[in-house]
Amino acid sequence: MKINKDTKFLIVGLGLIGGSYAKALKKQGYRVEAIARRKETIDYALENGIIDAGSTEVSERTVGGADVIVFALYPKVFLDWIDEHQDLIKSGAMITDVTGVKSCIVYDVQKKLRPDVEFIAAHPMAGREVYGVENSDEKIFHGANYIVVPTEKNTPEAIEECKKLGEILGFSRVSTLSPEAHDEMIGFVSQLTHCIAVSLMTCSDNKNLVNYTGDSFRDLTRIARINDAMWSELFMMNKDALLREMDKFIGEFNELRQMLADGDVEGMREKMRISTERRAWFDKK
Amino acid sequence: MKINKDTKFLIVGLGLIGGSYAKALKKQGYRVEAIARRKETIDYALENGIIDAGSTEVSERTVGGADVIVFALYPKVFLDWIDEHQDLIKSGAMITDVTGVKSCIVYDVQKKLRPDVEFIAAHPMAGREVYGVENSDEKIFHGANYIVVPTEKNTPEAIEECKKLGEILGFSRVSTLSPEAHDEMIGFVSQLTHCIAVSLMTCSDNKNLVNYTGDSFRDLTRIARINDAMWSELFMMNKDALLREMDKFIGEFNELRQMLADGDVEGMREKMRISTERRAWFDKK
Repeated sequence: MKINKDTKFLIVGLGLIGGSYAKALKKQGYRVEAIARRKETIDYALENGIIDAGSTEVSERTVGGADVIVFALYPKVFLDWIDEHQDLIKSGAMITDVTGVKSCIVYDVQKKLRPDVEFIAAHPMAGREVYGVENSDEKIFHGANYIVVPTEKNTPEAIEECKKLGEILGFSRVSTLSPEAHDEMIGFVSQLTHCIAVSLMTCSDNKNLVNYTGDSFRDLTRIARINDAMWSELFMMNKDALLREMDKFIGEFNELRQMLADGDVEGMREKMRISTERRAWFDKK
Repeated sequence: MKINKDTKFLIVGLGLIGGSYAKALKKQGYRVEAIARRKETIDYALENGIIDAGSTEVSERTVGGADVIVFALYPKVFLDWIDEHQDLIKSGAMITDVTGVKSCIVYDVQKKLRPDVEFIAAHPMAGREVYGVENSDEKIFHGANYIVVPTEKNTPEAIEECKKLGEILGFSRVSTLSPEAHDEMIGFVSQLTHCIAVSLMTCSDNKNLVNYTGDSFRDLTRIARINDAMWSELFMMNKDALLREMDKFIGEFNELRQMLADGDVEGMREKMRISTERRAWFDKK
């Protein structure tokens, strides 16, 4: 399978990310179909020119015509879909996903899957605090990272095509990581940060604080607005890696707390100097 | 003292905040002088029309002419200045500050100060991650909070004039809080958030993470770039309140960690639902 101008895409799950994929692909001139659970979703996407065709049914006609299928579903729903419907997929098709955790998904899917269909995992590191196709926007991919997550079972060709997909979608950086390295990284930069934001937000029910809030607090809690069904599932699927990252953070935070309690100003300043230096690495270029 | 178009302002300490005060006041047509430690600072401010006059010396001519003096200094430097130079202040002048902690400053200054000069404390909740008059910008006040922090010693007139100053500077919300309520609030919304950002940043020295970072991590660590001298001093001056806020946060974070370890998905989802609901309070109107 090589992506060319005639490649037909099918998006399964037309939420924020699925919808944004559809918009990006349509803008590049590709034919895009979609399967969604709710009829309203398909109607909206058709009326707004986000997809060329769509259905709430998983049928041979829709699935069997696709060269590339993107699964933009919750992890468990994705696994169930493969069990139930993989027979409908065209031989030689490439399938990929958008799941935020990998180790506990990729190997399972690859084991279940027919040998004439290749699953190459990917993680588009983009999102918003709102859901649904109505809020989809291909611009969320600009400036963002797209990570291809191959295993030993993947062919070099599929890895290349999946990277090409990341570029077509408009991501600024496309790279590859193993499932394990991906999950450790995501445990730190994404899941731990969401745990922190949620905990900070649940610390106080003082509504009055709104009147005194500067940008610091707003920045740290922006992601405290969180899809509880999706994120609790993602946390559980990356439990061990996330617990390790949480423990590292608690260790650092407690160290700083002890320095404050002890009046160890030099210790605090040293931590602040390290954090200042390291934060500079992360400035957007 | 009533602020009118002839009111002469003196800014003591011409850094990011002092410089932004000067710019905002000049734009409104007031006469602004400044005292700074470095000659380069005064030269820059004069060349760029940020002040009308300035000096590196604390002299009767500069200090004695001012109707309103704004101290934009580190807390300890501010206290020392009052000890050394308060005799130079004009009788009937109003003095105010920009210090980020209040209880450990306000009462001391008011006790030290001559009875014919009134100190009314204020906290402009605005800033940037860069320093110096070169980076000053009165636009940082737009959309931000200005908190007047009176004690029993303050007159209703001074409280009113200080609120008026907040409006002149261009702050979007001007309010009052007691020193104790201010410090508890600031311990939570500002200092705790900086402790979290620093701890998150010191967790890992993996430079490679830069390639995989989304906006979440960037948002949570923006304030990890921190002036270590200033913030360690602010932390120490608000130690008890900050330790209480840190302990509340550790409690919440550990609870979430335990839920994850126990596989208590419903518990995690409930926390996420609470955080989502509360975060909505903080959306910018």
